[in-house]
Amino acid sequence: MNKPSWTLSRRAERMNPSVLREILKVTERPGIISFAGGLPSPRTFPVSAFAEACADVLGRDASAALQYAASEGHVPLREWVAQQLPWNVDPSQVLITTGSQQGLDLVAKVLIDSGSRVLVETPTYLGALQAFSPMEPVFNGVAGDAEGVDPDDLRRQAPGARFVYLLPNFQNPTGRTMSEARRAAVAQAALDTGLPIVEDNPYGDLWFDAPPPAPLTARNPEGSIYLGSFSKVLAPGLRLGFLVAPKAIYPKLLQAKQAADLHTPGFNQRLVSRVLEGGFLERHVPTIRALYQAQCRHMLAALERDMAGMDVRWNAPVGGMFLWLRLPEGMDATALLPHAVERGVAFVPGAPFYTDLPDARTLRLSFVTASTEQIDRGIAALAQTVREHLPSPVAA
Amino acid sequence: MNKPSWTLSRRAERMNPSVLREILKVTERPGIISFAGGLPSPRTFPVSAFAEACADVLGRDASAALQYAASEGHVPLREWVAQQLPWNVDPSQVLITTGSQQGLDLVAKVLIDSGSRVLVETPTYLGALQAFSPMEPVFNGVAGDAEGVDPDDLRRQAPGARFVYLLPNFQNPTGRTMSEARRAAVAQAALDTGLPIVEDNPYGDLWFDAPPPAPLTARNPEGSIYLGSFSKVLAPGLRLGFLVAPKAIYPKLLQAKQAADLHTPGFNQRLVSRVLEGGFLERHVPTIRALYQAQCRHMLAALERDMAGMDVRWNAPVGGMFLWLRLPEGMDATALLPHAVERGVAFVPGAPFYTDLPDARTLRLSFVTASTEQIDRGIAALAQTVREHLPSPVAA
Repeated sequence: MNKPSWTLSRRAERMNPSVLREILKVTERPGIISFAGGLPSPRTFPVSAFAEACADVLGRDASAALQYAASEGHVPLREWVAQQLPWNVDPSQVLITTGSQQGLDLVAKVLIDSGSRVLVETPTYLGALQAFSPMEPVFNGVAGDAEGVDPDDLRRQAPGARFVYLLPNFQNPTGRTMSEARRAAVAQAALDTGLPIVEDNPYGDLWFDAPPPAPLTARNPEGSIYLGSFSKVLAPGLRLGFLVAPKAIYPKLLQAKQAADLHTPGFNQRLVSRVLEGGFLERHVPTIRALYQAQCRHMLAALERDMAGMDVRWNAPVGGMFLWLRLPEGMDATALLPHAVERGVAFVPGAPFYTDLPDARTLRLSFVTASTEQIDRGIAALAQTVREHLPSPVAA
Repeated sequence: MNKPSWTLSRRAERMNPSVLREILKVTERPGIISFAGGLPSPRTFPVSAFAEACADVLGRDASAALQYAASEGHVPLREWVAQQLPWNVDPSQVLITTGSQQGLDLVAKVLIDSGSRVLVETPTYLGALQAFSPMEPVFNGVAGDAEGVDPDDLRRQAPGARFVYLLPNFQNPTGRTMSEARRAAVAQAALDTGLPIVEDNPYGDLWFDAPPPAPLTARNPEGSIYLGSFSKVLAPGLRLGFLVAPKAIYPKLLQAKQAADLHTPGFNQRLVSRVLEGGFLERHVPTIRALYQAQCRHMLAALERDMAGMDVRWNAPVGGMFLWLRLPEGMDATALLPHAVERGVAFVPGAPFYTDLPDARTLRLSFVTASTEQIDRGIAALAQTVREHLPSPVAA
């Protein structure tokens, strides 16, 4: 009798336990105030609307809702998606996905070969790196500033790249939003070079004072795949997202979808389709915006108050769930985390979001999950941790 | 301005529209009696149990059910799975998947490199071929007979293969079941050669007179990945399956799962977990078995009656959803299908289930979706179609 000889694929050999995952485990310890996870506030979940929809769907349509279904998704939901997007989308271009994370997996399967170059923001969404990595791309970070990626660097790096992955609204992890002028320049760079764009927009509805500029895809629908999600405007636990793809690519994404899980749960699609009837989001989303804006303001005020006198910098997002903070010179957010956790507060270090050399001083704070009272206590604890670990002043 | 230069991955270039998918579209035409799809009878869906569970989960546990959750799955559901399997399984080895189709996708990602040899039954489940194909394996069919794969051929082909994919109970597409003696021999061959087994068991609970022998995995848990599903005992529309993996492989499958869709919908996992409480399946599954056995008997009787006098052969499955039929010499099931559809009846030709040279005379009939009255009409129409297309007798 031999030992079973499991031979891992090359991609699996390279998989490492997710840093974020290990961190989130720590932050689940009772009593920890967590600014780490990107968890929508459960206060925003429309529970009674879901309860009514469950009764309605099972009462009227149980046989279809509980049966195998088309891989494309539930037709009324695809129609709703097409109708609400601010450019001309045919429902036949909409593919319902098991969360928008699955959209990233499908894109990877259809567009990435081993060694393909994929351009990403610096830093970028970690979940996208995890979804793309199994197809063994080479990641190239595109330079940028507070307004988004640098169109000149994008042009320079475009030749031969399979696509650029962009998250223009309230980016994860930085919270930055691409300006109108930058969108125009980025879209033009993509058009000029023929570089496909994969645009991820999970947070776009969560604006505070004004909606963000139109998606990049609206400027170049034939050259873009657009990913959206119901996780932030309804609830993540149903795992419902969608993608919109040009006809040149849609059939391949559909086949990858079918091979991946046959179809997204039809019951969940019907629930959400039912909840969306009658303009539900027009009434519901403003309550999420108001809550998150209030909590963001609260966190900004707490940072102003508690970080005073230290060279700590952060941005003021205009929507979304995250802000981005930079520690004083000589500090390392990953090294600071255990000390912060000891003091009862958690965050996500910025390093794992970089594909190239990380900025070790950065970290991500979510302002949506914790209450204002927890935000006060958590930021105070974080500030105290930073203060205790400030590098000694170098002798002049 | 250039045209967007979409470059497909090698795997996407090779993807073809699924034959089965195109067939199923035809069979959705109103009035067609379909023996094609593997759709559980909606009469078996426990609608009121789901309705109660929805109310209960949203009433008691909405914040958790609608939130992001652990990639491993809902702990009580993992415990239930571990507890009901007939070998020693720790809940930490159970991964909840978005249907068992996703289990196949994860296995492919973790175990298949481009060019890896993967052994499959002749014929085998088409969905598995679709799930494995994106990772670009080379498929090798293992010879077999009515009792299952040939252990000697398995030994011969084992060296260097990444795994063998087996569906021992009421196989899709043939309906065949691996005998106890064959299981012992196959398990021994795998143990001797160190060949990992991926065992798929979506239909195991749907036995007619007696349960099938113990799974192969029970004989060699360290050398096997076991896939199960709730689609056939509860409902497919929730997309809930699971896999059980040895500790050597589990962490990699978990990372692939996290990258694929973060986690399976927590709401659905809690619904099913709630429905399963108090031994629900012990009362529910016998009603499915009785229904499917009656419909299977009805189809067998109709075949006896209507195919008389032609050299048409079929098997008598002891469970599951499918039987396998072989047309007279000189006939081709794929060529026959349009004529059958014209007469109002559909089936799936056997050819797409083969990785090597297909047996063009074979076809699959599902006996679970159509009513007995439809079975009578459908088999009569099929028999008439066959009769009309019998090859002319060769002059002696």
